[in-house]
Parts: sequence; structure tokens; C-alpha cells
Amino acid sequence: MQTLLLNADDVDENARMDRVIDAVRGAFTAYERGNAKMPAKSYIDLPEYNGDFRSMPAYLDVRTEDTDEDTGWDAAGIKWVNVHTDNPADHDLPTVMGTMIYSDPETAFPLAVLDGTTLTMKRTGAAAAVATDELAVPDASSLGIVGAGVQSYTQLEAIAAVRDIEEVVVSDLDEERVANFIDAFEDRFDVRAGSIAEAGHCDVLSTVTPVEDPIVGPDDVGEHTHVNAMGADAAGKHELADDLLLDATIVIDDHEQCTHSGEINVPYAAGDLTDDDIYGEIGEIVVGRRPGRAGTVGTADGEGVDGVTVFDSTGLAIQDVAAARVVYEQADDNDNGYPFDLLGLDG
Amino acid sequence: MQTLLLNADDVDENARMDRVIDAVRGAFTAYERGNAKMPAKSYIDLPEYNGDFRSMPAYLDVRTEDTDEDTGWDAAGIKWVNVHTDNPADHDLPTVMGTMIYSDPETAFPLAVLDGTTLTMKRTGAAAAVATDELAVPDASSLGIVGAGVQSYTQLEAIAAVRDIEEVVVSDLDEERVANFIDAFEDRFDVRAGSIAEAGHCDVLSTVTPVEDPIVGPDDVGEHTHVNAMGADAAGKHELADDLLLDATIVIDDHEQCTHSGEINVPYAAGDLTDDDIYGEIGEIVVGRRPGRAGTVGTADGEGVDGVTVFDSTGLAIQDVAAARVVYEQADDNDNGYPFDLLGLDG
Repeated sequence: MQTLLLNADDVDENARMDRVIDAVRGAFTAYERGNAKMPAKSYIDLPEYNGDFRSMPAYLDVRTEDTDEDTGWDAAGIKWVNVHTDNPADHDLPTVMGTMIYSDPETAFPLAVLDGTTLTMKRTGAAAAVATDELAVPDASSLGIVGAGVQSYTQLEAIAAVRDIEEVVVSDLDEERVANFIDAFEDRFDVRAGSIAEAGHCDVLSTVTPVEDPIVGPDDVGEHTHVNAMGADAAGKHELADDLLLDATIVIDDHEQCTHSGEINVPYAAGDLTDDDIYGEIGEIVVGRRPGRAGTVGTADGEGVDGVTVFDSTGLAIQDVAAARVVYEQADDNDNGYPFDLLGLDG
Repeated sequence: MQTLLLNADDVDENARMDRVIDAVRGAFTAYERGNAKMPAKSYIDLPEYNGDFRSMPAYLDVRTEDTDEDTGWDAAGIKWVNVHTDNPADHDLPTVMGTMIYSDPETAFPLAVLDGTTLTMKRTGAAAAVATDELAVPDASSLGIVGAGVQSYTQLEAIAAVRDIEEVVVSDLDEERVANFIDAFEDRFDVRAGSIAEAGHCDVLSTVTPVEDPIVGPDDVGEHTHVNAMGADAAGKHELADDLLLDATIVIDDHEQCTHSGEINVPYAAGDLTDDDIYGEIGEIVVGRRPGRAGTVGTADGEGVDGVTVFDSTGLAIQDVAAARVVYEQADDNDNGYPFDLLGLDG
């Protein structure tokens, strides 16, 4: 029995975005229906190194949704990931590095060990795409990006898979980042640099920054903008002003994670934002328990939310498992990766 | 930057037992002194497959004990491991399979991915050796083994590193297992098959079975036998009779793990064994906060425990991290393993 080793390039090549989006949608569905097991993320804080480790184990089963024996599936795995803020300056290493073990739930055999860094970008983009599909205006054609770091690329790739994006406005204080982003996408999109307000007046806005003081105010977004708030992943992080949040329809990925480390964590801890201000979880919308935006797939005539919507995404372990499955299956089909007898079972 | 892949053979060859024992002793010390971070083991139960996954992350720092810059160390990692009871019969796979990610705590770079199955056997043997060194009679020369499965081999290897073992009695209902065990060790030891009582009247006894009904009673052990109770790793498992336990000096590895899933979990849950019946944690003995057996290293003249001693070992994530470090360092020195650019940082 061989474990398939999939490096960053293998993950990039085999994480076909349309399939990752479907898989992440399936993960949200399974979670909502009680067909996922996801122990709380556990943290090891290392203040000495200004960093932390996070372990994210999960199991999910989409077979009640997709009962076809050939396509219905379940999957398990764990991502071990960190945030070490000083890595780029002190060690010429990324702030975030992830390693994913993808396992067969029936036997627990480790089918693959994958680069979890690229995987995180893909599944995070896919989550934004699922939310955008449910919450952005149906004819959305413009996307704003605030923060042109590594996570911004998959935001555009994924969201363009669910809406016919033509125009992209990217906003970042770092001109080189902006230039690199434009360079990467100018062949496919009408992409330009702009202010936060210009980005925010697009039909869809993704914020992908690590800030702790909000940088997007209520006047920075359009009347019907859907905002994917992707940046906050720890207590104290906060990209959107409280009055923007309180006037918007807020959809979260997971109550515990969002209230502790998501976009809403700061006003929630202060008592300025309460459970009454949260519209629902993305899973509820995906399975149709709550309507998304009026006119989008799954909403009946005349029902659905309007105005500004915000998706607070913290990133769930089930997204990693779902995305890892896509990569593993595709790589296996393509004979990509390096098979390795890690457990010595062929001896 | 390359991640070193270490398969079962690499782990076996590079887990030098004397060093693993030292490292595990260091781990118990660090834990006792508050220099380890070990979130609770988290479980994903999969009753459909009669199995579960366990994630075991940990960080430990032995630098306050060993302040030499060249030899003091800290380490981090996670083991993802399972228990799937039907694996051997239904899938020709081991019941337990583990995968370990060993990381540099300063940057979180994954230095190695290791077979966690072999690693578990090594670090479990090492834990028994540390306990035996503190709790067995100083001149112990005989070792009984009850349960001749995969974990029994490292019990003998490790315990023979801390006591001058000459005579070994192995007890198991499965004659083939007994024959295999004898075959493996008869060149080095006077090893023979025997009853549970014969094994239990050795100076040291290790029980390594998955039973739920106790198989070792108070009359099955000698007056001064030290028992390593290694088998229990889940609620309901129980190798030693309650009256043996209650009359013995009980040393545990971790209060939470032992009371939930260790040898004492059944009588503890029933209220038949309480905290008052627990002598202490192995870390307390290793650092000298409580004496071990009279006459062993670290005990003053005239102090120390006597009679039957029991070490309740559930296995701690810090043991895995400590053992992984030994394997990684040794393999790296020996140019063993397969370096792999998992994270694509060399691109």
C-alpha cells in the first residue's frame, strides 16, 4: 500500500476549481445535515516564536446527498498548519505552512500526504465562491479585492467560476503586489488598481488582509455588494467596520469559530454584535433552510435577502478534507505525485 | 527546503532505543515542569467502520533541563492515528496505523513525515522503560510479557536497556505469536512460554493486551513485581483486577487520559478507585518530586515505595514528538530517508 505524496505543484494542478467548489459545497451541506464530524480546532501557542500551530481534523460524509455508489463519498483527514508572523522577515519562509494527511475513513490508511498551503488557498477561494453563488446578485460581473497577497489569487479564480466576472479592482498599499496581481490576470479580466471604495463598489468584494483595525467602512461598499470577509482567522482581527457589519446580512461558516476568531469576533466579544445580528450559517443557505439573495439559485420567487451581505469565513477542517479528496482523486487518475510506502506495508 | 520522508524501516533503524528512552524521559520531565503544551487528544468516532481517528499534537521544550546550546532542544509535531478493529480480518491491514508530522517549532516548517506506527511502538516501549527504571527493583533480571502482539517486542527491547534482563516469560493464547516472539529473542535472552502467573512473578511484567475483562489477578504477580499496564487505551479496557490495582502503588502518565481511557478508567468510573489511590504521575517521579522504588536512582536512603507497583500508560503526544526528534536527527545524520520538497519552497 502506497501513500501518494503531493507537493505544491501537484496540489495546484489537481485542485480543479469547479470540483473543489462542488466538494466544499458538499462539505457545508454535510456539516449542516449532521453528516460531518469536526472536533474544535486545537491551538498550540508559541509566544516565544510569535507563532502557533493548529490541528484541524475532520470527517465528512456526503452519501445522503449523493447516493450514487459511484459518486457518493466520505472522507477523513487532518491539516496541521501554523501562523508564524516573523517567518518572511526572519527565515525567508511563508507565514502560513500546512501539511495535510488525507485518509480512507473505512481503514484509516493514509491515502495521501499533501502540501496544505496550496490546498488552503484553493479551499478558501472555493468557500468564497459558494457564498458568492448564494449571496451575490445573480448578474454580478465585477469583483473587488482588498489585499493582494497569496490568498487573493484563488479568490478571483474561484469567484469567476460562479459569476461571469469581467471587471476586477484590486486594492493594496503594496504596489508590487498589485502589479503582480494585475500581471497574473490581465489576459483574462479587465483588472486595474483602485482604492478600497472602488473595490468595494464592485458587485462582489473579497477582503483578504490580516488587519486588526477595520479598513472597509459602510460608505466603501455598494448598495448590493456581497462581501467575502476572508482575512480574520484569530481573535482581534477585524476588516470591516462595525456599522457596515450591523447593517448587512451576516452569514458565517461556523458559530464557534466565527465568534472566537472570525470577522465578527471583535464586536461579538464587545457585545456590540450579538447572535440576533447573524442571519445564519452558510450550510443553512446551501441546503435551502434559509434563502440566499433574492433571485439566486435555490430562492423562490419574491423571497431572499437584499442589500449588503457579508460572509464571515474562518475556514473549516471539512473544507480541507473535501478539497484534499478532489486533489487526491484527480492526481491518482493522472498518475501525478510520488507513491511512497510510508507505513512499510509492502515489505 | 525539503521535508524528510521516513518510512517504517527508516523509523525502526533510526529510533535508537537508548536515545528514545532519554527523549521520552525528557518529555515526561518537560511536561511535569510545565514546559510542554499538549492539547487533549481529540477523537473522531466512526462506528460505521468500527473505528476511530485520534489527533495528538504537542510541543515540548527540554531547554530548562539541558541548557547546553548544542544539546538542549525543543520540538513540535502531531500524530494522526487510528484504531480500526476490523482491519486485520477485513482489509489485511493493521488495526492501528499512524502518520507523524514533525515540525520545527521556530518556523513550523515540517522537517519530517514519519511512519507513526513503528514510532508508536518505540515510544511506548520507551515509556515502559522509564517507568521500570524508576519503579522496578534495582536488580530486576526477569521480565514477563502478557500479550505477544506487535507492541510486546519493544517492551523487551526497551526494558532490557534499563535493567539487566536475562529471563523472559511470554504468555499469550495464540501459540504462533508466542513462537514468533521466542524466535525473535531466543538468541539474546532465556525466553520461554508460560502462564500469566509465571509471567507475573517476574521482577517486571508488561501487559500489552486489548482486553476489557481483567486477566491478571493479585495472585498472579510477585511481592515486588513492577507492572507496566500498557494495553488500555480506550474507555472500558482493563487488564488488571481491581484488587491488584488497589493494593499496588499506582503511577499514571496523565490524569485526564488515564481516568478516561487508561488501565484505571473502569474502576475510576465506577468509583471503586479514586484519586486517593493514585500515587502520582510518572513525571513527578522522574523529576524527583516523589520517590520511586526504594533503592532506584533518585531515591534517598530509606525512602521510596515497595511492594507491587503499576504504571498506567496511555501514551502521550509528547512521547511521539520526543521519539520523532530522535529518529529525524539520527536519519538526517545517516542520510537516511527520502527528502521531498512537499511545500514547493525550492521552486
